[in-house]
Amino acid sequence: MTKTTHGRFFEDFTVGETIVHATPRTVTAGDVALYTALYGSRFAVQSSDAFARAVGYPHAPVDDLLVFHIVFGKTVADISLNAVANLGYAGCRFLHAVYPGDTLSAVSEVIGVKENSNGRTGVVYVRTQGFNQNGTEVLDYVRWVMVRKRDESAPAPAPHVPEVPSALAPDTLGDAAPYLSLDHWNRHLAGSPYLWSDYAVGERIDHVDGMTVEEAEHQIATRLFQNTAKVHFNQHTEGQGRFGRRLIYGGHVISLARALSFNGLANAFHIAAINGGRHVAPLFAGETVYAWSEVVDRAELPGRDDVGALRLRTVATKDRSCADFPLVDADNRYDPAVILDLDYWALMPR
Amino acid sequence: MTKTTHGRFFEDFTVGETIVHATPRTVTAGDVALYTALYGSRFAVQSSDAFARAVGYPHAPVDDLLVFHIVFGKTVADISLNAVANLGYAGCRFLHAVYPGDTLSAVSEVIGVKENSNGRTGVVYVRTQGFNQNGTEVLDYVRWVMVRKRDESAPAPAPHVPEVPSALAPDTLGDAAPYLSLDHWNRHLAGSPYLWSDYAVGERIDHVDGMTVEEAEHQIATRLFQNTAKVHFNQHTEGQGRFGRRLIYGGHVISLARALSFNGLANAFHIAAINGGRHVAPLFAGETVYAWSEVVDRAELPGRDDVGALRLRTVATKDRSCADFPLVDADNRYDPAVILDLDYWALMPR
Amino acid sequence: MTKTTHGRFFEDFTVGETIVHATPRTVTAGDVALYTALYGSRFAVQSSDAFARAVGYPHAPVDDLLVFHIVFGKTVADISLNAVANLGYAGCRFLHAVYPGDTLSAVSEVIGVKENSNGRTGVVYVRTQGFNQNGTEVLDYVRWVMVRKRDESAPAPAPHVPEVPSALAPDTLGDAAPYLSLDHWNRHLAGSPYLWSDYAVGERIDHVDGMTVEEAEHQIATRLFQNTAKVHFNQHTEGQGRFGRRLIYGGHVISLARALSFNGLANAFHIAAINGGRHVAPLFAGETVYAWSEVVDRAELPGRDDVGALRLRTVATKDRSCADFPLVDADNRYDPAVILDLDYWALMPR
Repeated sequence: MTKTTHGRFFEDFTVGETIVHATPRTVTAGDVALYTALYGSRFAVQSSDAFARAVGYPHAPVDDLLVFHIVFGKTVADISLNAVANLGYAGCRFLHAVYPGDTLSAVSEVIGVKENSNGRTGVVYVRTQGFNQNGTEVLDYVRWVMVRKRDESAPAPAPHVPEVPSALAPDTLGDAAPYLSLDHWNRHLAGSPYLWSDYAVGERIDHVDGMTVEEAEHQIATRLFQNTAKVHFNQHTEGQGRFGRRLIYGGHVISLARALSFNGLANAFHIAAINGGRHVAPLFAGETVYAWSEVVDRAELPGRDDVGALRLRTVATKDRSCADFPLVDADNRYDPAVILDLDYWALMPR
Repeated sequence: MTKTTHGRFFEDFTVGETIVHATPRTVTAGDVALYTALYGSRFAVQSSDAFARAVGYPHAPVDDLLVFHIVFGKTVADISLNAVANLGYAGCRFLHAVYPGDTLSAVSEVIGVKENSNGRTGVVYVRTQGFNQNGTEVLDYVRWVMVRKRDESAPAPAPHVPEVPSALAPDTLGDAAPYLSLDHWNRHLAGSPYLWSDYAVGERIDHVDGMTVEEAEHQIATRLFQNTAKVHFNQHTEGQGRFGRRLIYGGHVISLARALSFNGLANAFHIAAINGGRHVAPLFAGETVYAWSEVVDRAELPGRDDVGALRLRTVATKDRSCADFPLVDADNRYDPAVILDLDYWALMPR
Repeated sequence: MTKTTHGRFFEDFTVGETIVHATPRTVTAGDVALYTALYGSRFAVQSSDAFARAVGYPHAPVDDLLVFHIVFGKTVADISLNAVANLGYAGCRFLHAVYPGDTLSAVSEVIGVKENSNGRTGVVYVRTQGFNQNGTEVLDYVRWVMVRKRDESAPAPAPHVPEVPSALAPDTLGDAAPYLSLDHWNRHLAGSPYLWSDYAVGERIDHVDGMTVEEAEHQIATRLFQNTAKVHFNQHTEGQGRFGRRLIYGGHVISLARALSFNGLANAFHIAAINGGRHVAPLFAGETVYAWSEVVDRAELPGRDDVGALRLRTVATKDRSCADFPLVDADNRYDPAVILDLDYWALMPR
């Protein structure tokens, strides 16, 4: 018998089962500084205690995506260590602001399983909840991954495929954002004159800049999130694997795209929800990430006159400018440069 | 109309205009740790709360150059995104100590413009002020950059070239340093027996060590400062550009040279002012930085018997030892290895 | 006369002499975040204030090895700048928990010297003590290094070789760990069901994962520790040196092996002592580190029923899986892939 964990295989997941993940993690000013250093994010609310206080936060909250990555990271050892692919996310809501000093932990419930017809793999659906040290839920999302079977002859479980929402409704958004004091929202400091009402559905924004990723950078980031997926860290094995090299954590691309989106969306201070996301193609070190966004929808939040929500589709590419908004061809196949297609709700002052 | 910022061009600058820069930034212990990790600085006042308290600070102040880089970083999107070259700095004074928890913001005034005779570019002079969350000025400097015109047919503005000081006078120095309790200045802990009176004008000091720079390091540093200059981050475009590769932020070289200068100047605990600096040649990843310094002047500070000022010329080279103090040849041309020629005032206990 | 330090040579060390090292260093949440980002450590006590408080700490202590690296780093400029090789460690005890905000300083006593028969080098033995800002000793160890002579004709000193313990006795362990409230030790959060009594002497554990090291990562780490050994940082000189490249700090390997050991030893929350360690072969950037451990001994701590000690031999390899526990061949020669052979005591809840 070994003391070592090799991760769960498909037949180890049972619908209804709850998994308490290791390791709880206190988020600190150190993590925030590293997040800035790794992605170059410039949103004023997360960057400045003074700005955050002026508009209604007790002080600067932790970047929403840093919270996501830390909670997600905890689930890897239990859920996706033997995953073939991350298939999707849905229903991801940010429910409570996280501040330096808060301790995050994560619990997942298995909400679906379905063996693939090849008998070698299956799809596992989990709902993951992130909590702070007071037991307050800060994050909630559904994720489904394709996982290998340990024993191909193990019988297939009864298939159970949960319903997942294609998008969050506007009345479910905004719990993590305090009521904002708009008089103190200084647009010079925030970096853009454009507020919620200035954006039109269908509008496309090229975020202009490109960011080249180095091996050390994505490894430092992914370890910061205590994410242990082997493919990101081991050149000795990955060099002989599918791609011949280490694969960059998909969340690294999401954070780069979000940081680049400051140029054009500087007042989109908070990600309220992620409706879904697709990692269309892998990113490798040495490649350069660009991004563009389309405003897919605009919504008021019931009972709030301070902020509105923009539903954004942010597309990231590699080694290709986004000046002409690359996406799909006539046959609806992704442009070969596209690596991320993300659908989320961001809040902006009205 | 686009929501995206492409930066100002030469004709967008008007003498007398004031620019409030995004994004305010709370400096934390996380930034301080990253600064240490990126440059290896070892000055005791900035490294140790206990040492700083013993000599008269409330606790360890943030490294002067970290303050400079953060304030400078804010100005890039507004001032130098379309710059061809950073031409110079002058009159840079550190006016108030910055501590973890302080929030820095920056404002620039356009103090001069002069179109170049080629009609394609012009020189813009700005005075930038950095402030803390209480509105106290912490940093003040003049900088001039060569900026492209958007439209070459735009008429040239009336030329206005401001006077800039060639060096700060000793009586303008020291506002950011408390009166020191010299009895508690432990030279063993500080790393050197040599105090202000031990240094002679004309003395040259080889700082001995070399530090090789990696792409990930300068990118992490430059993003930490929220500096968005494209040339530092985008291999996809820079690979086809002037140098075929990413250019390292000039401030990275200044910080490396200052950290190396600990060996020989360990008691030079505070940069009071930067008289001027020249980035003689570019630095690229994989190259190794060395440095040496000359004591150019020595000054007492009016009314202070605790500290004195040394005016230092610190020269950095790449891939060349500084044991023989490389600088200029008989025709006053820089040695090809020289990359930085910096003129500043540092304070030392008397 | 120069103001620069070139480090001590063999003939500069006198038995009985005390050396106060520069630079005191306040450890912060920023250092802790960087440590996590560089090694990916997941031990719950060091990761979570909430977990640490529940089991009896005031809040999360700083990782033991971060304390070791910072204290060790201070000694390099005085002890090993002209070292040919680090020969060994012994008697390393962690005596008091270190928390963010504490300031560490270091003092060494020369406890032995012995010139080598070649007349060009000698072995220097030092006992180093690390202290916090209150003067409480937090770390104590003996180290011996081979150091070059400045002048080969200098007479050999009287040889003095101190006795060093081969291992710490169990009754010397545990001073840095509070009495634990085991009712609150949540093994789900800690990451493993196995406690002290579940481990058997002779048991071997493959830690499974591999971690590839990049130049930027080990340089960032080693600078964070303010360790100034030239071989880690200067490609310009090392490119023409013994290995043709920068040598990675041996402590980097120790921290990687410890972080990897979480998989199999997740409840081994504290390193109480390092009995000895051998850097069997050098590690270079681009290589991948694996590790395995053997339980060498198990001991109760006198007067404590909360925790027990496991004496562990942790072996790290490069570019070779540890699934078959590589160590020595029939002639007791190390497997060519082995880079570290570490002997230490870790504490675990009973």
